Amino acid sequence: MKIFFAVVILLFSITVSSQPEKKAAMQKADETQATSMLADIHAVSPALERYTRDRLIGELWKRPDLSPRDRSIVTLAALIARNQTVQMGYYINLALDNGVKPSEIAEIITHLAFYSGWENAMSAVVSAKDVFHRRGITPDQLPPATVELLPLNEAAEKQRAASVEQNFGSVAAGVVQYTTDILFNDLWLRPGLAPRDRSLVTVSALIAAGQVAQVTYHLNKAMDNGLTQREASEMLTQLAFYAGWPNVFSALPVVKDVFEKRNR
Amino acid sequence: MKIFFAVVILLFSITVSSQPEKKAAMQKADETQATSMLADIHAVSPALERYTRDRLIGELWKRPDLSPRDRSIVTLAALIARNQTVQMGYYINLALDNGVKPSEIAEIITHLAFYSGWENAMSAVVSAKDVFHRRGITPDQLPPATVELLPLNEAAEKQRAASVEQNFGSVAAGVVQYTTDILFNDLWLRPGLAPRDRSLVTVSALIAAGQVAQVTYHLNKAMDNGLTQREASEMLTQLAFYAGWPNVFSALPVVKDVFEKRNR
Amino acid sequence: MKIFFAVVILLFSITVSSQPEKKAAMQKADETQATSMLADIHAVSPALERYTRDRLIGELWKRPDLSPRDRSIVTLAALIARNQTVQMGYYINLALDNGVKPSEIAEIITHLAFYSGWENAMSAVVSAKDVFHRRGITPDQLPPATVELLPLNEAAEKQRAASVEQNFGSVAAGVVQYTTDILFNDLWLRPGLAPRDRSLVTVSALIAAGQVAQVTYHLNKAMDNGLTQREASEMLTQLAFYAGWPNVFSALPVVKDVFEKRNR
Repeated sequence: MKIFFAVVILLFSITVSSQPEKKAAMQKADETQATSMLADIHAVSPALERYTRDRLIGELWKRPDLSPRDRSIVTLAALIARNQTVQMGYYINLALDNGVKPSEIAEIITHLAFYSGWENAMSAVVSAKDVFHRRGITPDQLPPATVELLPLNEAAEKQRAASVEQNFGSVAAGVVQYTTDILFNDLWLRPGLAPRDRSLVTVSALIAAGQVAQVTYHLNKAMDNGLTQREASEMLTQLAFYAGWPNVFSALPVVKDVFEKRNR
Repeated sequence: MKIFFAVVILLFSITVSSQPEKKAAMQKADETQATSMLADIHAVSPALERYTRDRLIGELWKRPDLSPRDRSIVTLAALIARNQTVQMGYYINLALDNGVKPSEIAEIITHLAFYSGWENAMSAVVSAKDVFHRRGITPDQLPPATVELLPLNEAAEKQRAASVEQNFGSVAAGVVQYTTDILFNDLWLRPGLAPRDRSLVTVSALIAAGQVAQVTYHLNKAMDNGLTQREASEMLTQLAFYAGWPNVFSALPVVKDVFEKRNR
Repeated sequence: MKIFFAVVILLFSITVSSQPEKKAAMQKADETQATSMLADIHAVSPALERYTRDRLIGELWKRPDLSPRDRSIVTLAALIARNQTVQMGYYINLALDNGVKPSEIAEIITHLAFYSGWENAMSAVVSAKDVFHRRGITPDQLPPATVELLPLNEAAEKQRAASVEQNFGSVAAGVVQYTTDILFNDLWLRPGLAPRDRSLVTVSALIAAGQVAQVTYHLNKAMDNGLTQREASEMLTQLAFYAGWPNVFSALPVVKDVFEKRNR
């Protein structure tokens, strides 16, 4: 699949500076890459090419109930959580085309350093660095290292911190401390990614990595943050394709339970 | 390990068109690659080289109860499920040498797009495309995108669909619909991979990815489709090496339960 | 991140043979690589660069209760268990700088071939081979393929073998046999890695891969082998960053249970 990236690089390097031409050239690059990818798939499995063309590109991404932008967020979260780099550049480009801002991609990768592991984020950095470079996205367009944080919901955080401290304070003091200091009093309050989107990233990454145990807490938080049940349901359809059916079926009983308790 | 592939590429490009010479050249390429791999392992751990030579190559692959062809299917499923590309080309070549048909490899990759996630299949496409190219395998030797499907077991499918619809129809309508339309009324009925082999791929991928929850259903289906208990047991031995001991030990209680219920 | 490796290779190839100069050159290479990595992260997310600089490099690795050497062992185990190669070379170099011996790295990779799957070890071999080559580490500095083994704790092994045989002997005779012959009567007795370190590798790999089911047995074995509760607790802090928060939170109840039962 390196050939796709070569093609993309070639096409991007021809792009001129005026914005509309640049955008057209980038879209052409995306199309060229998609075409080249389909040719590779055809060489190995004409059936898989058909499924990719008809079901994935032609159908899944156009389904109602979840916007192309949200599908890109779900898909990127799944790929980063699963450390899948083979088409990461393609999907970062697609996310930008679908309206995910560069600043939001920066925050998604940063968020998943903590939720999917540091090296998953490092792999994403390698792909994102190239995409940002080709598109002329520079650090001044990204959220600064230190920002004014969103206000903390002190009551909810007090409850969360007390519960974790009581359960695991004596077992893993370091983890408990960092969970409060970095995750809930810093990372989650960074304004570059809306809390609803940050939750969507977290839940998608958890399901994509088969980490069902934390889905109840984070799906509730996502829906508190504004994710609708229709969107959550359609997130599962997107994840079935990008994280595989078994991961979604393992999450289904947990998601069902969350939906039912909230609908009472 | 890129050096192995370079060697393989070099040797394959010397191959001539007559079939017996081609086969001999390919086998020589496989041997050269295996030798080069063992040299690399030796440079890092002479003990690991010994285990690889004596236990893996010299013993595991020659054990009774599971044919080399089936071992190749189990191993490929494990590597694709775990997104492990470092020797994917070597193991696809080995599978072809062991009697897995190119059409079956195409179907295995297509099947795992759904069961292991789309990008796992995409990574496999990259390796398989190269192997197919070197061996002169062209799309006309692969199953066409649309084929006459095997007959559906309508009673069993009706029961499965009803159960899934009742459990999760209101939670994830999209997933439930695609599970019926694409997976059970299309993918599973493609004739390019025998149902028993398709089941072997599915169970191997589930165990290799630590997805124990679906093993009961799919191991029963595998054995209904003709996988013997001896073969299933020996599949676990193969997976211990290629998916790691812990994944197999996590699956053991579930497999034991399936065996015992079927033997009553 | 290939650029880092290019820089490292370049710098290493300038290194001269005298030991102090060599060491200085290697440390400079490590620093150069770390700097280059931070520049890449900055280009994608200034916030992630800050977290990496302040929290990871500046804080986590310097925390008390777990030595830099042990942190390197935990981190390498996590990366190999998760098949994360993007900075594997950097972390192998860091491990050697932190006092992990080449012979111990050889044994860690060999051990994880069995506990994380053969191809995870093969990916590590690719990175380790390069690092060993640049540092002039040759096979005669590594543990030989066959060594005089540590004495077996026959009572404990008899009990373990009987329990596994009774549970799974009829289900997976091959797995059970190899577990005894290769794992507990051979691999675990190799003297190149102290039993306490071998246990630390195993527990770290299990938690990093989300394999909670075997943590009870192996964490108890680790603490029997000399791992203190403080060290085990701080191992979790290291793993939170390198395997992601959810894997650690899934392990916390199990770890808590082990600690409590041992403290009674």
